[in-house]
Amino acid sequence: MGPCMGVKGGGTGSGASQIVPAERINLHFTGDFHAITSAHNLLAALIDNHLHSGNRLRLDPRRIAWRRVLDVNDRSLRNVVVGLGGPVHGVPRETGFDITAASEVMAILCLAQDAADLRARLGRILVGFSYENAPVTADRLHAPGAMLALLRDALEPNLVQTLEGTPALVHGGPFANIAHGCNSVIATRLALHRARWAITEAGFGFDLGAEKFFDIKCAGAGLDTAAVVLVATVRALKMHGGVPLADLGRADPAAVERGLVNLDKHVESIGAFGERPIVALNRFLHDSGGEIEVVRRHCEKGGVPFAVTDHHAQGGAGAIELARLVVQQAETRARPFRPLYDWQDPVPEKILAVARAMYGARGVLYTRAAERDLAEVARLGYGGLPVCIAKTQNSLSDEPQRRGRPSGFDVTVRGVQINAGAGFLVVLTGDILRMPGLPAQPLAESIDLVDGEIVGLR
Amino acid sequence: MGPCMGVKGGGTGSGASQIVPAERINLHFTGDFHAITSAHNLLAALIDNHLHSGNRLRLDPRRIAWRRVLDVNDRSLRNVVVGLGGPVHGVPRETGFDITAASEVMAILCLAQDAADLRARLGRILVGFSYENAPVTADRLHAPGAMLALLRDALEPNLVQTLEGTPALVHGGPFANIAHGCNSVIATRLALHRARWAITEAGFGFDLGAEKFFDIKCAGAGLDTAAVVLVATVRALKMHGGVPLADLGRADPAAVERGLVNLDKHVESIGAFGERPIVALNRFLHDSGGEIEVVRRHCEKGGVPFAVTDHHAQGGAGAIELARLVVQQAETRARPFRPLYDWQDPVPEKILAVARAMYGARGVLYTRAAERDLAEVARLGYGGLPVCIAKTQNSLSDEPQRRGRPSGFDVTVRGVQINAGAGFLVVLTGDILRMPGLPAQPLAESIDLVDGEIVGLR
Amino acid sequence: MGPCMGVKGGGTGSGASQIVPAERINLHFTGDFHAITSAHNLLAALIDNHLHSGNRLRLDPRRIAWRRVLDVNDRSLRNVVVGLGGPVHGVPRETGFDITAASEVMAILCLAQDAADLRARLGRILVGFSYENAPVTADRLHAPGAMLALLRDALEPNLVQTLEGTPALVHGGPFANIAHGCNSVIATRLALHRARWAITEAGFGFDLGAEKFFDIKCAGAGLDTAAVVLVATVRALKMHGGVPLADLGRADPAAVERGLVNLDKHVESIGAFGERPIVALNRFLHDSGGEIEVVRRHCEKGGVPFAVTDHHAQGGAGAIELARLVVQQAETRARPFRPLYDWQDPVPEKILAVARAMYGARGVLYTRAAERDLAEVARLGYGGLPVCIAKTQNSLSDEPQRRGRPSGFDVTVRGVQINAGAGFLVVLTGDILRMPGLPAQPLAESIDLVDGEIVGLR
Amino acid sequence: MGPCMGVKGGGTGSGASQIVPAERINLHFTGDFHAITSAHNLLAALIDNHLHSGNRLRLDPRRIAWRRVLDVNDRSLRNVVVGLGGPVHGVPRETGFDITAASEVMAILCLAQDAADLRARLGRILVGFSYENAPVTADRLHAPGAMLALLRDALEPNLVQTLEGTPALVHGGPFANIAHGCNSVIATRLALHRARWAITEAGFGFDLGAEKFFDIKCAGAGLDTAAVVLVATVRALKMHGGVPLADLGRADPAAVERGLVNLDKHVESIGAFGERPIVALNRFLHDSGGEIEVVRRHCEKGGVPFAVTDHHAQGGAGAIELARLVVQQAETRARPFRPLYDWQDPVPEKILAVARAMYGARGVLYTRAAERDLAEVARLGYGGLPVCIAKTQNSLSDEPQRRGRPSGFDVTVRGVQINAGAGFLVVLTGDILRMPGLPAQPLAESIDLVDGEIVGLR
Repeated sequence: MGPCMGVKGGGTGSGASQIVPAERINLHFTGDFHAITSAHNLLAALIDNHLHSGNRLRLDPRRIAWRRVLDVNDRSLRNVVVGLGGPVHGVPRETGFDITAASEVMAILCLAQDAADLRARLGRILVGFSYENAPVTADRLHAPGAMLALLRDALEPNLVQTLEGTPALVHGGPFANIAHGCNSVIATRLALHRARWAITEAGFGFDLGAEKFFDIKCAGAGLDTAAVVLVATVRALKMHGGVPLADLGRADPAAVERGLVNLDKHVESIGAFGERPIVALNRFLHDSGGEIEVVRRHCEKGGVPFAVTDHHAQGGAGAIELARLVVQQAETRARPFRPLYDWQDPVPEKILAVARAMYGARGVLYTRAAERDLAEVARLGYGGLPVCIAKTQNSLSDEPQRRGRPSGFDVTVRGVQINAGAGFLVVLTGDILRMPGLPAQPLAESIDLVDGEIVGLR
Repeated sequence: MGPCMGVKGGGTGSGASQIVPAERINLHFTGDFHAITSAHNLLAALIDNHLHSGNRLRLDPRRIAWRRVLDVNDRSLRNVVVGLGGPVHGVPRETGFDITAASEVMAILCLAQDAADLRARLGRILVGFSYENAPVTADRLHAPGAMLALLRDALEPNLVQTLEGTPALVHGGPFANIAHGCNSVIATRLALHRARWAITEAGFGFDLGAEKFFDIKCAGAGLDTAAVVLVATVRALKMHGGVPLADLGRADPAAVERGLVNLDKHVESIGAFGERPIVALNRFLHDSGGEIEVVRRHCEKGGVPFAVTDHHAQGGAGAIELARLVVQQAETRARPFRPLYDWQDPVPEKILAVARAMYGARGVLYTRAAERDLAEVARLGYGGLPVCIAKTQNSLSDEPQRRGRPSGFDVTVRGVQINAGAGFLVVLTGDILRMPGLPAQPLAESIDLVDGEIVGLR
Repeated sequence: MGPCMGVKGGGTGSGASQIVPAERINLHFTGDFHAITSAHNLLAALIDNHLHSGNRLRLDPRRIAWRRVLDVNDRSLRNVVVGLGGPVHGVPRETGFDITAASEVMAILCLAQDAADLRARLGRILVGFSYENAPVTADRLHAPGAMLALLRDALEPNLVQTLEGTPALVHGGPFANIAHGCNSVIATRLALHRARWAITEAGFGFDLGAEKFFDIKCAGAGLDTAAVVLVATVRALKMHGGVPLADLGRADPAAVERGLVNLDKHVESIGAFGERPIVALNRFLHDSGGEIEVVRRHCEKGGVPFAVTDHHAQGGAGAIELARLVVQQAETRARPFRPLYDWQDPVPEKILAVARAMYGARGVLYTRAAERDLAEVARLGYGGLPVCIAKTQNSLSDEPQRRGRPSGFDVTVRGVQINAGAGFLVVLTGDILRMPGLPAQPLAESIDLVDGEIVGLR
Repeated sequence: MGPCMGVKGGGTGSGASQIVPAERINLHFTGDFHAITSAHNLLAALIDNHLHSGNRLRLDPRRIAWRRVLDVNDRSLRNVVVGLGGPVHGVPRETGFDITAASEVMAILCLAQDAADLRARLGRILVGFSYENAPVTADRLHAPGAMLALLRDALEPNLVQTLEGTPALVHGGPFANIAHGCNSVIATRLALHRARWAITEAGFGFDLGAEKFFDIKCAGAGLDTAAVVLVATVRALKMHGGVPLADLGRADPAAVERGLVNLDKHVESIGAFGERPIVALNRFLHDSGGEIEVVRRHCEKGGVPFAVTDHHAQGGAGAIELARLVVQQAETRARPFRPLYDWQDPVPEKILAVARAMYGARGVLYTRAAERDLAEVARLGYGGLPVCIAKTQNSLSDEPQRRGRPSGFDVTVRGVQINAGAGFLVVLTGDILRMPGLPAQPLAESIDLVDGEIVGLR
């Protein structure tokens, strides 16, 4: 909901390819995000109440890792001091708010197998450290029961439909740049219960969403893949071919040609999992035939199955060719996918495996802070968790400006956070914000209710 | 939801007299509170974004009146500093969080006549002052449209039922100690549309909830009353008769007798509106017959209609006598109620009228801060708003310890806040908190989900 | 030093009546204020270091009473949050800075009899409370030794001279509105060692400086008075006679006449100590003869010894008449002064005694916070300390606007602070600031060094 | 003064080799540090007052570079929020306190040629940036005049003496790890006025203090050197030879031998300035003859003049051999020293020159923040200033643990600060603190005044 008030559109598609009711899905929907916000902040209130009420666990107020969340774009909540006003108003300390999509509770909900697993994961959340440097989990605060009660209904997947009446499950929304980025295990299971295959969107580029889909979601839940679709657009290829934002509207087959190195890298990356992709070129109104042909010829030359999709204009009819290729691939596929790393590998090896195979990096550098974090991970026994790398979605590298297929670069790790409840280590590269801000002219200023209809959402 | 995690029970009744589904109503329900939280905090985000993005309106960051809200008991959020961390993370300033029930948006939703009125009221919210001391409203920030969109569904009343299937509308929940304390005008209108009379609960004592029901809700919306029920309990009368909390379980007719001065005061107060009450004595398991008789005889002697109600044990059957008295009163009532004051009276006269007629005060004192606030109210032209007095619910006076029927006291006004959207002036007496805290042993620690059922709520 | 950068002049006199070297005395002088600042802030550093290093004494960070000081007018330091930035940078808590003249160390230095007494008093400073609500003193932090070392040289009085070569001791500078307001006991003793009488200036009106001189300094140190001079000016009398600031330059004998009620009150107040004042009218250039005559006749009529002094223009020669009256009074005086109260009286009686006899108040009101403070004073056993009332210097009452001789008013006490080291209770009335601010056009902007000479000080 | 309360000894020497009066020099001395503190904080007060009083210059409160200083070890002041408490108490913003030795005013005082130059430098101080990103200097706030007035006496050097009566000038004290680290230009000039040569101590290793002495102080003031003494100790050589702290007391000639690589590096570094050093081995009580011989032989073999000094035990007599070597060197020296870089070189070249020639680094890396800082330096036209590199004194590299003579390492620059008044760019490497903390058992706890003498200082 927060980003809808800023500059981003919602996540329900557009044109003839939409799920409905879009404005409900984009705002309160069934209240899942609100429930996650509530459960997250209840834990925060229990922590601060514990500090205030004798602090039996000797929690160090300066080393509480658990922040608060709100589903709003509000940069001024990123860094706050709470507990001010005197001895009856809590204990002063520094903390902050993230957006709800960045809540560890969001990731937990999406990875939980069932209510019992959800409860166990909530209990494992690492909330902070004692003065004696001992880790303190949510279980020690007796928080999971009430959190679970607040999440009861949110744990159920939500069934919606496309404009053409095709069922779709919308459940959970962890960001793919700072979390694992795909919908819930429970929703996928439910879909597989009613259909031979379930399609999962793993956002923000194959290097971010899909890698985590394979190595965290599927590896953790014992799911396998039947086919992989790599979505491309002429516009993005031109951007990777060096065209500035303002000129992307102009036909430029040569730029598309140059941008294909980026596509090739993703095709290779998919191969690293033992998969063979189908490339779907998502057609836009202003794409020129020549530009599309560049991509088609390139794929054909490389032996990569390829389809132009036109569902934005035509709905399901526009994606039939793609559907045929997908079914063909799914029916002929023989063996399970191959994860990039074994969860039991040493943490730096796991990070290096992703950085090399997915980003094309030469190596990985660690700041001193990150090295200290790695030592903490080892001391606390969390080394067996998979790695969830937070990286910019604008480049294969960790520098947003580097387009195309960067090479010869090192990824710099600035910190490693333990999401013991979600069950992964968040590996921070670059400057990743967990709470967005509003632009100078936020969309909220033009959203309105007219004759009972919400207008102005993008 | 917040208080359910602390020490208080929910608001759905108990025993045979309950509305269901109780645990849903007490937690997320239909999401109205979440929508109010979202709309409230969106305005806050727009304010801080405005400060950050050039501050065209020259808002003084130190004079923003609009705080944030969360539906959680969290004392450490009462006073916070936001906007820390450097120039890209907003503008540092002091603010805080209230509980959602204390949000002005809550009061607005409950007093709005329809969507158009809701929009207009949202626009009138006074968010703060410019460096030049000019008031700035939410309209100037183009916030009401998006807030209204977020509140669209919350504006619709929610129909639930009692255990016996009687319909009940649950809509809105402003606190009666710091806000006007009763459900929405729209819900009351909807009820009246389908029934001859609608029963409204106005909580926290006649001096708080009911006074505001008459002078703010009814006077503002053009509603009238048909009958007034004053609910009494043996336990509360004993407390006003001087019995300490620990001894309230022991039968003590003499203490009940002594406590009747408090009941008498409320009966008189009702008379100040030109109404004649029916006293309903809500029977509890351990009430002794002798105690009940003390009350009955006193009412009969004073000519006040009286009924013992036993709905907790018997459901509707336990309140039939009361129902008969109410219907009798409603059918014979001739003229509309008489407000305590005219909205156009000077503000101190309005406050004095309530303090004398409702609290039994001798007079009203103002701190220097309150005097400055009154001067601001006059300067800004808000003198014609009714007064919503925030006072302790533990005493008729503004001192929580004074039981029974205090007299000869002055009420001290510490401040006056302008709720221009809700359309009233909040007059602060004593130490009223807008954000509760959790107790040392919060209920949340024992709430849980067992076999899909939420347990541990009170 | 701080106020010299703002709007106030220094404290060295002017015209022919000055002590020199003025610009040194007003700035760094012999470093006494710097030493007090250093000793004060060393204790603050030891407190925060104690919180950081295991907190053996279980000091509650929210209940530290000891703030920091700087000799600068800097309003933005009044309320600060320290200890931010993470676990290696201290413990977050709210505190603030006062100006050095408001430091309890300043008061202690001025009241100490010798180094041993200074050490004992430093040790008795109440720095805060433990989580168990036990008082913690500076002794518990082993701070007094190092503080005393830093104060070694500051404890020695400083000998300067007037322009005419008369010796003067300048030693210490506690504010008279928030502290006891006169120079050190040691300096007075030193002066009395070399002369028959020592003249002490007790600033900010007889009701502030002089009352504390009698009841705190003299009563505590066993000093007695030989004569009391009450300094009046035509300008101040006109102000008390109702003339606005802008018109004080105009001759107005009638206004002087009206303002004499204020003078009369001070004469009466002096009588409350068993003293008989000499009124000295400090002549200003633009005083008219008629105005002066009004005062002279009034004093003669009342039998009060009176002299016009003209030392600003004439130096010592201008004060010879006054000097004769003073010597005459001092030589004939028979018995010691009579304090307003006995230190062992109950605290409210001590406050009432001052409020009635000095301010002309009807009574004393206490806020709830002040009542709680009084209960703390009793609980901790500090009830036997004298009271140091912090009050505005602009009125005999606690409301700055009330000129002349207010009557029928109550003084409102907002809080009581324990200065256990100084050995008095600070009784707060009105809004007394302990840290001044700079004006929009501070003097500092025009202070400069020209050819080695400091210019621009007032 | 601050460090004397913590764990460090003062700076006046020990044994027979001391300057006196030590306890005065180490505490308040002549008040120079207090004057610097006052001048520094006056500018801070003027800045915050400007923000509060209309902010004519449109200073962005989030981009004020000027912090406050206190001469106390107080970690909890490193990061603070000021201006809290409401609109009359300033503007909320983040800032902090450094120790006085880290004040830019300290560096300015030490580099100023005279009062006029001091004034000009104070005026050039970069206090922050406007909302429009324009730099704002102290001149714009009319601060230099008053600051200069406060510094008038502090600008004069202070003459003290050794225990043997040799005159010594003690003037200024900028840290050598974060500032340029040597005494004032004025003191050096004064000394040279009365003697053929003046000896300057440049602390914290040749790579820190001496490099800045050459490239900043001498190059800026047009001073030249006559001879360079490199002081070594057996203890430090053993440490660089790999001996842990606890074992340094044990004779270990082999470890001394291993540690000589560090000495060799410094000898080479001195050569980079075109100088030839004299090595002075400062004898300690427990040094073994064998250890000393290792050093002597090594120097003789390398042709480096060498003397063992024993002034701690013998006073001046213990340094006669060294004195002879120095005089010999000074009298035969032919040409001026050669700076490591030209001030007009590009900033990265200047940094690289120091890193290679002094630290033995392979290269220099820049964080993104540092790159942004370099761009700002260029934008604002400060590229022609010399570089003052803040680096750990525990290693030649920027990592404190690396002993001996590290090689093959890169120095990482984390930020570049503009000290426009001092006239250099502070280049930050590693984690350099500008405000020390106290240890768990601070020296202050055992400092005391006994019979008028200060005891317990180290």
